[in-house]
Amino acid sequence: MVLDLLAFDADDTLWQNETHYLHTRDRFKELLRGYINVDHLEENLNQIELENLTYFGYGIKSFILSMIQTAGQLTNGCITSMDMLKIVQFAKDMLDAPVELLPGVREVIQQVSQDFDLMIITKGDLLDQRRKLSRSGLEGFFKWVEVVTDKTPDVYRKLFETHHIVPERFLMIGNSLRSDILPVVSLGGQAVYIPYHLTWSHEHDIDHFTTLNGYHEIGDIVHLPEIIQQICNE
Amino acid sequence: MVLDLLAFDADDTLWQNETHYLHTRDRFKELLRGYINVDHLEENLNQIELENLTYFGYGIKSFILSMIQTAGQLTNGCITSMDMLKIVQFAKDMLDAPVELLPGVREVIQQVSQDFDLMIITKGDLLDQRRKLSRSGLEGFFKWVEVVTDKTPDVYRKLFETHHIVPERFLMIGNSLRSDILPVVSLGGQAVYIPYHLTWSHEHDIDHFTTLNGYHEIGDIVHLPEIIQQICNE
Repeated sequence: MVLDLLAFDADDTLWQNETHYLHTRDRFKELLRGYINVDHLEENLNQIELENLTYFGYGIKSFILSMIQTAGQLTNGCITSMDMLKIVQFAKDMLDAPVELLPGVREVIQQVSQDFDLMIITKGDLLDQRRKLSRSGLEGFFKWVEVVTDKTPDVYRKLFETHHIVPERFLMIGNSLRSDILPVVSLGGQAVYIPYHLTWSHEHDIDHFTTLNGYHEIGDIVHLPEIIQQICNE
Repeated sequence: MVLDLLAFDADDTLWQNETHYLHTRDRFKELLRGYINVDHLEENLNQIELENLTYFGYGIKSFILSMIQTAGQLTNGCITSMDMLKIVQFAKDMLDAPVELLPGVREVIQQVSQDFDLMIITKGDLLDQRRKLSRSGLEGFFKWVEVVTDKTPDVYRKLFETHHIVPERFLMIGNSLRSDILPVVSLGGQAVYIPYHLTWSHEHDIDHFTTLNGYHEIGDIVHLPEIIQQICNE
């Protein structure tokens, strides 16, 4: 099978993302511990984030606005505005955090870029994603960068149209079954699932390959060149 | 001259945008009037917005985060968190506001869509811009929608490449000389400048056409079909 284009998810596929959110949730908990019992803080914040999703969408600014709302509501207005300012500062700290590539990413991207055109398809805040890519040192390897609001089959279909992509010759690589893998496979494309270690490592063998109808799974991005070789030999 | 594609800016070219910001600035002023002398509030907020631009970029969420920071700082922390929550609510009200098309827009878009492919090129928050387009009732007229972080010549050049656009056969329509007109003209494209009435009406004749080296100016979008006719006859 011939592949024309490899497309990568970015957050938690190329670089650390979830860890920054976890760290900020910890800082938030420490801050609110001075006001309230924080045992259910996580659930409350999650609930407000979910309610705000239609307004704010994904990304750091949305996360912080939900945190500010949660802080005001849970403390019944007792939180000082100085502490509110600290939460605004959390946002800047997250946006300013260095980009940490996941192990092996740089070498793999460099290697596969010699044989294929590369693309990024990522969800989230446009400016933040662009800035992370620019800081990652990887920007020059990618021919196209697409930041989208959601990764639905319709969104992929539109991208295929814009970039004149033949689905069968398109390979998407990412850590989310729902966003990176299923919609692509449903359109006749190929996809390589790399579970993110923080959330998934206990559920998967690290070195095992699984392959079925356009779906492939590897435990680590360092195996990507091998699985690509395998796909191209099919 | 043959045109293949018409691209439109969105905010304050197709629909009201600036008015929502002005209205929210007024609400902010009213809120802070209970704490401080608000004579220089506008300048202070502008300054903080400018400083935060590299972190937050453009858009409603960024605007509101800067407002929260301004409120905390200017009141020396005296603002209650209940009032901080009101500022979070300003964001939701803005994001939820109905999309008001500028006069004549619907008819003009409908008319020109019969002869040309249409595109939107807009700056700002991805989710917010997508949602506004979807609410505008105009989505079906546009073949491509591109939300970008900034409208520099490089960004336009990349769009030309992606969509296989010949600059000479491309016409951009917008209300910002800096973002919509100059970069396009500098790349050999055509552009129609329509000054936004709120900020510019006193400086321009309404019905006067100006045309020079790919640059055209009209006082109102209702004149767009005429100027297109004129360009095509050149």
